[in-house]
Amino acid sequence: MTDFAFPPALQASVAIAGQPARFPVRRIFCVGRNYADHAREMGHNPDKEAPFFFCKPADAVVESGATIPYPPDTQNLHHEIELVVAIGMGGSAIPVASALSHVFGYGVGIDLTRRDLQAVAKAAGRPWDLAKGFDLSAPIAPLHRVSAGAQGVQGRIWLAVNGVEKQAADLAEMIWPVADVIAFLSRSVTLQPGDLIMTGTPAGVGPLVLGDRVTGGIAGLGEIALTIA
Amino acid sequence: MTDFAFPPALQASVAIAGQPARFPVRRIFCVGRNYADHAREMGHNPDKEAPFFFCKPADAVVESGATIPYPPDTQNLHHEIELVVAIGMGGSAIPVASALSHVFGYGVGIDLTRRDLQAVAKAAGRPWDLAKGFDLSAPIAPLHRVSAGAQGVQGRIWLAVNGVEKQAADLAEMIWPVADVIAFLSRSVTLQPGDLIMTGTPAGVGPLVLGDRVTGGIAGLGEIALTIA
Repeated sequence: MTDFAFPPALQASVAIAGQPARFPVRRIFCVGRNYADHAREMGHNPDKEAPFFFCKPADAVVESGATIPYPPDTQNLHHEIELVVAIGMGGSAIPVASALSHVFGYGVGIDLTRRDLQAVAKAAGRPWDLAKGFDLSAPIAPLHRVSAGAQGVQGRIWLAVNGVEKQAADLAEMIWPVADVIAFLSRSVTLQPGDLIMTGTPAGVGPLVLGDRVTGGIAGLGEIALTIA
Repeated sequence: MTDFAFPPALQASVAIAGQPARFPVRRIFCVGRNYADHAREMGHNPDKEAPFFFCKPADAVVESGATIPYPPDTQNLHHEIELVVAIGMGGSAIPVASALSHVFGYGVGIDLTRRDLQAVAKAAGRPWDLAKGFDLSAPIAPLHRVSAGAQGVQGRIWLAVNGVEKQAADLAEMIWPVADVIAFLSRSVTLQPGDLIMTGTPAGVGPLVLGDRVTGGIAGLGEIALTIA
């Protein structure tokens, strides 16, 4: 019998700004096409009916500041800057009106995407999973915990490659705001403490190449940085 | 500031037959259409080129014997019996010839599927994730650890609903055997100890309704049971 060694803890986690404790990551849900301009740049009409979701493994999270190897199985790695919502209180069929009370905090994340694999999957009606949920595909900066009475988040979201701005928008441009996203998602799965939701990316997605330095940020939530090497 | 309570450990795990230790689940990868008859019953030609993969959250695992509530957001919950491969040693670009040395053990699992959500996603080129990766969507019976010199697995795989057999095949009918699946998958992601691979389902998938008692098994790997309630 082979003697396999398992790491003592596989639990993925994300840093919390200004706190020694870390946020334990249970699942990562991502919203597709939540900014009209991004839907159009991907060749789709913006959908006002209902958002759709995909996932990344919890294991895919990586710290801001990381150096990320150019992933295998792709020649078209793309950046997508996103607002990350951390769920602190679970629930199913959560009403929009109380949805923000389930939020532990917010952060800045990048939804790294193997765009070529995604294009093949979309054309064939096949799953997107390996296009979206590969190793180190979810860089997330430290979460900012929500203060009582200040549950919302607003302002500018941006991403630059080697200092050149590629994506810039206002969170108000989201087709489904955070409360709506939580409400929709919780109709299909029971949200749990530890779930993260990546809320979609604005227009301006594009390829990354070896050596690229990626920076991004959201007003009030700090910045994220990573290097492709 | 709201006082959120996180469970002390979110780590998903699966029982190991005859051992007190449990197998820690990092990720769950699933192979699509790995039996020709199932590919045909889903309206596709069997693909001999390369398998495709989708995922379930690690959090979706549930013990054999569980009572599973009929999930929300669907009117067409389907059963898919599958051989589960537990990875004990990681690696990338693993050669077929040595792939089975990465296997910790094998088990019986059911890939519960919200078929109506999957059909909508396939038609629209959208992700399958919520069709496949919802709460409690991965019942898995205790894993059987591989003995030295007996790394393979073979024989009959079957599933019955209320005692009536619905799925039956031989593992030899898999288009891509376990070693091939490991080799293909490890070209796209770095496999890690704790990863599970669900290897696809044979023909005979079908709907489950409230009160259904589902049983299944694989030669040499025991049986699985669950109730929809």
